[in-house]
Amino acid sequence: MKIKKSDFSEWYNTITKEAELCDLRYGIKGFVVFRPWSVMTMNKMYSMMEKSIEKRGHVPALFPALIPEEYLTRESDHVEGFVPEVFWVTQAGNNPLEGKYAMRPTSETAMYSMYALWIHGLTDLPFKMYQRCQVWRYETKATKPFIRSREFHWIETHNCFATKEDAMAQVLEDMEVTEQVIHQEYGVPFLFFRRPQWDKFAGAENTYAADTLMPDGRALQLPSTHMLGQNFSKAFGIKYKDEKGDDQFVWQTCYGPCISRIYAAVLSIHGDDKGLVFPFDLSPLQIVIVPIIKEDTRKEVLKHCNEVKKMLEDDFTVKLDDSDRTPGFKFNEWEMKGVPIRIELGMRDIEEGIVVMVRRDTGEKIKVKPKDLNMEIKKAGEAILKNLVKKADKWFEDKLSSADSMDELGKKLEEPGFIKVPFCSDSLEAKVCADVIKEKHHANVRGSLFTSKETPKNKKCIACGNKANIYLYVARQY
Amino acid sequence: MKIKKSDFSEWYNTITKEAELCDLRYGIKGFVVFRPWSVMTMNKMYSMMEKSIEKRGHVPALFPALIPEEYLTRESDHVEGFVPEVFWVTQAGNNPLEGKYAMRPTSETAMYSMYALWIHGLTDLPFKMYQRCQVWRYETKATKPFIRSREFHWIETHNCFATKEDAMAQVLEDMEVTEQVIHQEYGVPFLFFRRPQWDKFAGAENTYAADTLMPDGRALQLPSTHMLGQNFSKAFGIKYKDEKGDDQFVWQTCYGPCISRIYAAVLSIHGDDKGLVFPFDLSPLQIVIVPIIKEDTRKEVLKHCNEVKKMLEDDFTVKLDDSDRTPGFKFNEWEMKGVPIRIELGMRDIEEGIVVMVRRDTGEKIKVKPKDLNMEIKKAGEAILKNLVKKADKWFEDKLSSADSMDELGKKLEEPGFIKVPFCSDSLEAKVCADVIKEKHHANVRGSLFTSKETPKNKKCIACGNKANIYLYVARQY
Repeated sequence: MKIKKSDFSEWYNTITKEAELCDLRYGIKGFVVFRPWSVMTMNKMYSMMEKSIEKRGHVPALFPALIPEEYLTRESDHVEGFVPEVFWVTQAGNNPLEGKYAMRPTSETAMYSMYALWIHGLTDLPFKMYQRCQVWRYETKATKPFIRSREFHWIETHNCFATKEDAMAQVLEDMEVTEQVIHQEYGVPFLFFRRPQWDKFAGAENTYAADTLMPDGRALQLPSTHMLGQNFSKAFGIKYKDEKGDDQFVWQTCYGPCISRIYAAVLSIHGDDKGLVFPFDLSPLQIVIVPIIKEDTRKEVLKHCNEVKKMLEDDFTVKLDDSDRTPGFKFNEWEMKGVPIRIELGMRDIEEGIVVMVRRDTGEKIKVKPKDLNMEIKKAGEAILKNLVKKADKWFEDKLSSADSMDELGKKLEEPGFIKVPFCSDSLEAKVCADVIKEKHHANVRGSLFTSKETPKNKKCIACGNKANIYLYVARQY
Repeated sequence: MKIKKSDFSEWYNTITKEAELCDLRYGIKGFVVFRPWSVMTMNKMYSMMEKSIEKRGHVPALFPALIPEEYLTRESDHVEGFVPEVFWVTQAGNNPLEGKYAMRPTSETAMYSMYALWIHGLTDLPFKMYQRCQVWRYETKATKPFIRSREFHWIETHNCFATKEDAMAQVLEDMEVTEQVIHQEYGVPFLFFRRPQWDKFAGAENTYAADTLMPDGRALQLPSTHMLGQNFSKAFGIKYKDEKGDDQFVWQTCYGPCISRIYAAVLSIHGDDKGLVFPFDLSPLQIVIVPIIKEDTRKEVLKHCNEVKKMLEDDFTVKLDDSDRTPGFKFNEWEMKGVPIRIELGMRDIEEGIVVMVRRDTGEKIKVKPKDLNMEIKKAGEAILKNLVKKADKWFEDKLSSADSMDELGKKLEEPGFIKVPFCSDSLEAKVCADVIKEKHHANVRGSLFTSKETPKNKKCIACGNKANIYLYVARQY
């Protein structure tokens, strides 16, 4: 295994292949086959995310994968942003179709055409719906499995409100979901930004996004919430009658946690030089039992291993690796696969009346009496998550810095991370300043901290030298 | 609500609309929007099915939605069967693509191109994989929501074995899954057929399929298992080295429970003239609490209703309907939606120290002490499933009959169902006999009972009059 810290890109390519997470040999460029070891974790991630958003009142629906051209082009900014990336269906069987259909690059236009038929009055609001689906985009940037490909797996929530305030409250609720699920349950730290005006979603008034950092210090966008204002409701005619009986357009938000991409963050941030490391509840397999066998003790040891397995399998996912490989080989294999807990059991342990439990995250070995095993594993599972969150937070914290000049920014970027800089503005006119940074340092302005009220005092914009009015964060990005 | 028995088609159209299960007004013909009330049940159905197949060793994966033309056309029978139904992607952004890509109509060719890279030896077998996904087919028959549309939601398992016997054992295991999940958990009865040779899957040696009956007596295909033999393994080069080190092609099966279609069977078979009826574990909402309020008791009654809700919500999905509508209106609404248990609670019940529990399936009213409520609901939930299975089985049983002549078949078809007839053969040559039945009675030969060994004694083929060698089942079909 390559060293994660010194050559992350090589580490990533190696682990996704060795742990059989995906296969890049499928016959269409940019389309990846996701293998069981990644899909099992992504399914768990989907469940946690769906539970959290359903608890907050979003209900599931399923909309067609194809979108008529006429829907897709109804909101003018949206067209401009997405049409260059669309895969078009033009033919069915041997015949050309009359119109052409887009494979959804995102579902605003598919969903809002129906919302206009369903929403009529104040009793229909707030209207909070989601779908779990795939989307397709003809990416021109280099693809990398899970991080960026032409097909990805996500959840998208699409919501309508009577007022702008209600819509803004949804942005905060989305941030809360991101914190609870992605940070606390997946263990992925992030900063929550308001994107600069030049970097928002096509058709939105504002884009708010959680960014994490990959081990090479480059920023990776996790879910974003788009404040759509009334742009789409006006284009699609989504209206309600207010108390006076007058027609009003709804205010809209959408939120898009991309599970396949967040999975990339999970495996990259927690992994180490031995391979994958998973939070206990995200691992496809939670416990592997490795028998320590000599020829004459084989039967006795396997009998005990099977008893331990039976004790555990109601509460956890557990596998007894009774294959012919050596214990050492098995240790390496299952460590590489990220299984959180290994149980070793040999004749000496049986005589001592214990089993040995080994934590993947710390390597810690604990001797446990069989009767205490289920409880000890439950405790260890919680401790593993806690440790991974803490470790990731500490690492992330160390990647935050600040700079007051272009030179200082350059120096800070030698160890990339998020660098806070004073800036003139995040409005469209300030894009020229962002371009200076991009050109000089190959880094991007990711936005202002959503929840921070801090403003620069007597500082100058790092790029143009005019008065600084806002702190923005700069990073190299995926 | 229209009468289900006398005009099933009208009942079906009405209920799918009134209960907000789907919306047919989307801008592409044959593409349906699935609304929350159906998606919530289909998600539960997916979970039960996935649990059952994972227990039997199938592991989940995710393959691309697009298939290169070159893969799709590699197995010659498969091409012929599917190419006329394929939606083709020919353009990305504003540019034509070099090749063209099929939106998967089914995933054999996408998956087997990779299987050839993954399977090498006996230790890789059996190889049992599945994906949960959507498929697209340009149907030329009339579409009907859930039953037949151009986009549907299914699970497909694709399996490889060392021997033909192992593959045949998988057909039996699939039948076991169908029995356990679709019959025992969803409550949908079926017969399990071997299809005649003229009606098998494109590329298969044999197709085995579970058929149910809809309330109008017409047959609906539920999952089918295709015994693919070595047709695809030869076309895709899926080989393993046997004990002697010689290359052997694997034997393959695939199984495709179409959740959106099975959902149509669930709602049609259990529903009644008041609307939907769900097994307890399939309903989006399990319990609705309806307060019986007079103006002066409002506060007190709602307080008690909230207490009951709190008692139940850890174990069940429960809603307190405290809207301004009348109790009668609410009763009708939630009965139409199929909620299995209603709890009524008014001042008189509070004084009596009881709550009233009403079963949707039987209308039975039971007075329960609050302390016993959770246990009573659990018991009622089990009783509801049991009752629905029993009722459906009884109804299904009554739809089975037999006929020994074309005239008798015609008479039996006045009350459609499955009609057992003596037939010359189910080989390709006997298709002419099936065509006679189709022309004369607008009915189809569905196949022979997979598990039955019964053969006709001294009978003649109902169509050609030659010696009958097999019993086949005839039905009108969807």
